[in-house]
Amino acid sequence: MSNKDQRMVNAFDPASAAALPAREQALVRRRQLSLGAAYRLFYERPVHVARAEGVWLYGPDGEAYLDVYNNVASVGHSHPRVVEAIARQASTLNTHTRYLNDIVVDYAERLLGTLGLDDRQAVFTCTGSEANDLALRLAWNVSGGRGLIVSRHAYHGVTASVAECSPAFGEGVPLGAHVRTVPPPDSYREGEQAGPRFLRDVEAAIADLKRHGMQPAALLVDTLFTSDGVYAEPAGCLARAAEMVRAAGGLFIADEVQAGFARTGSHFWGFQRHGAAPDIVTMGKPMGNGHPVAGLVARRDILEAFSRKVRYFNTFGGNPVSCAAGMAVLDVIRDENLQTNAHATGALLKAGFERLSEKHALIGDVRGAGFFLGVEMVTDRRLKTPAWVETARVVNGLRERRVLISATGREGHILKVRPQLVFQSEHVHLLLDALDEVLSSL
Amino acid sequence: MSNKDQRMVNAFDPASAAALPAREQALVRRRQLSLGAAYRLFYERPVHVARAEGVWLYGPDGEAYLDVYNNVASVGHSHPRVVEAIARQASTLNTHTRYLNDIVVDYAERLLGTLGLDDRQAVFTCTGSEANDLALRLAWNVSGGRGLIVSRHAYHGVTASVAECSPAFGEGVPLGAHVRTVPPPDSYREGEQAGPRFLRDVEAAIADLKRHGMQPAALLVDTLFTSDGVYAEPAGCLARAAEMVRAAGGLFIADEVQAGFARTGSHFWGFQRHGAAPDIVTMGKPMGNGHPVAGLVARRDILEAFSRKVRYFNTFGGNPVSCAAGMAVLDVIRDENLQTNAHATGALLKAGFERLSEKHALIGDVRGAGFFLGVEMVTDRRLKTPAWVETARVVNGLRERRVLISATGREGHILKVRPQLVFQSEHVHLLLDALDEVLSSL
Repeated sequence: MSNKDQRMVNAFDPASAAALPAREQALVRRRQLSLGAAYRLFYERPVHVARAEGVWLYGPDGEAYLDVYNNVASVGHSHPRVVEAIARQASTLNTHTRYLNDIVVDYAERLLGTLGLDDRQAVFTCTGSEANDLALRLAWNVSGGRGLIVSRHAYHGVTASVAECSPAFGEGVPLGAHVRTVPPPDSYREGEQAGPRFLRDVEAAIADLKRHGMQPAALLVDTLFTSDGVYAEPAGCLARAAEMVRAAGGLFIADEVQAGFARTGSHFWGFQRHGAAPDIVTMGKPMGNGHPVAGLVARRDILEAFSRKVRYFNTFGGNPVSCAAGMAVLDVIRDENLQTNAHATGALLKAGFERLSEKHALIGDVRGAGFFLGVEMVTDRRLKTPAWVETARVVNGLRERRVLISATGREGHILKVRPQLVFQSEHVHLLLDALDEVLSSL
Repeated sequence: MSNKDQRMVNAFDPASAAALPAREQALVRRRQLSLGAAYRLFYERPVHVARAEGVWLYGPDGEAYLDVYNNVASVGHSHPRVVEAIARQASTLNTHTRYLNDIVVDYAERLLGTLGLDDRQAVFTCTGSEANDLALRLAWNVSGGRGLIVSRHAYHGVTASVAECSPAFGEGVPLGAHVRTVPPPDSYREGEQAGPRFLRDVEAAIADLKRHGMQPAALLVDTLFTSDGVYAEPAGCLARAAEMVRAAGGLFIADEVQAGFARTGSHFWGFQRHGAAPDIVTMGKPMGNGHPVAGLVARRDILEAFSRKVRYFNTFGGNPVSCAAGMAVLDVIRDENLQTNAHATGALLKAGFERLSEKHALIGDVRGAGFFLGVEMVTDRRLKTPAWVETARVVNGLRERRVLISATGREGHILKVRPQLVFQSEHVHLLLDALDEVLSSL
């Protein structure tokens, strides 16, 4: 374990604020006074943003940053159709779901239609954390047990219950006694053995929970293992893992906060790449292109069993404005063929990284699906030694060239590449050229 | 305990859907198919809404409902200044807090200025549930213990950790072993003894936690005890209770989701009525007039201690659009003198209910502060027997007269009166006349 494990990847150190221009120093100082200490800024030199459009963020003086990081504004920053939908609905009606209103039903039906699963129902929340928190409550209720299995460096959100099954927080947030972790299938280090080894570990985690007298409640997995380091292969292994946990009386919860809404290109949802049929699908970030909307889709019988005991009402969840934003996002993905673009331009991007890897030995592996790629940096290709110091320099070097990106994985040595779905080949070339420059300058 | 304890106050029974018009029947049917079973509608005959403005909700055929329930759209439905702020900011920039941006800092400073407490900092979330969930994590961290004290029928939100300290959910959601409950100060039944008895019970709860080997972490209280039945008096008792829990090594967390943002009229925050200085203040519902924004303000040292161990990042929390909505709400409250209106028109409303109580023996007590009133209905004034059957009839009778209201308290026999802050004397008269009619027709 490197010391990266204890801190946030790519965080600004306020001790170096003196090196910033006066305007940014003043803003950093005001932030430190008014916002809680947990607030962090990205980059050695934080980025000051004032507006955004498409794949570009703009500073207060108009300087443009190519955004290869923000998967929330998934259909492009300030997309006019989403903005218009929000503005129109906010000026018409914004209230809760205990009155009859068409929009929440229209949106739920439309969303359910994307999943290709029978007998499912939706529940809306405001954040992915809330969606995962509710998913755990559903799994605990229907399984009668508490046991959870997550990946080794998983991140599922910030509520107390979700944080204690999110090992990515490090030692400061203890895992629950009911939580077991399994290493992700690591195609780079394990090759063909990644899938079978992952499944053996899931089986072992199930057995270990039982051995401790705990009924397995759920296997909760980000279907791209993005926090672990982006592992898309072997597609299919999650379907097998789901069978295992179901055979043990638990549920398979697909966390689609990262992979969902067409990001993987080949499919609309990450679980579809695996041919899996999750009992619960949780979703968030890109759902409203930045508007706080999230939710889950679950088997009807799971929701019915829960509602016989428990009321669940989320005041802002499923409000008409959030649903209008969500519907506009689905419209834009369809009308602008963004899933196709994620597939095609994502392949172009991946091929570009592979070409760069022929020139730069630091790039050990390029993997992922569609518009979520992981570029693993190693100091030694044979030993596959994590190059987290160099990765931080690459991330900050790109920022100096006004290309925004970050890193992921336990050691923070894997470039996390997740552009907006509207990213075009011209942007691919800008990114690759900048990366080539940075790598050449190290 | 009545059977009201096990179910939601004022819920529509889908078994009676056949009595609805064809259009609403069809929509109810579609809801039942697409939305999880936990979704409930209000009223024996659900209200179908299509648009809203000021204190009015409108059905699809233009029929107007006077809104005396929705404290979320606090400055009035579809308020043009809030809508405009959201639309303008959404078309400019909507991203997270890890880049420098003025708006989140401007809003945090403005919000902190309303509290009148020194050395506090803000953390933004999307829902009150998330704010309370984080408040618990902060209290657990700084106190080193887990023990929580809440009021007998408290409701603090829907995450797993918050639900298990929200007795309002009833037996279907077990309270945590670390949770103690105390009856609210009930001025109606206890008179002058309400405050001293409440404080004795807080002291006993602290002692009981310790006796079970648990360090008290927090007293978490809605400063108007709204879910318990709306208890505003004796103002001052929460300051004493806060001292007690602090002396025991715990925190006082003021849940201002209901009382905050000028609703009590005399003060901007409910804790200010009590002369208390909370360690943590949580807020939500009216903060963005329906836009999903919430958060907390805590002592700086509490946030610093937490951040030394734990990262907290809420993707949508404190985004520029949410902050713009929140700022517009503060502007409107100030520019339209809404706190003054809540105070003056709230007094008019309270006096009106008191006059009605002279005519209708069903009204046992009228209490509350500003624009959050509780009107307790009893079948026998001497015995103060909860009149929950009659209260349900009153709520539904008002709905038939197109006045929207609900009930609260453990037995659901207390009218929950919380109009928008823009409610005027003409609306007071409409409400009181409708209530007079309904009470006369029982």
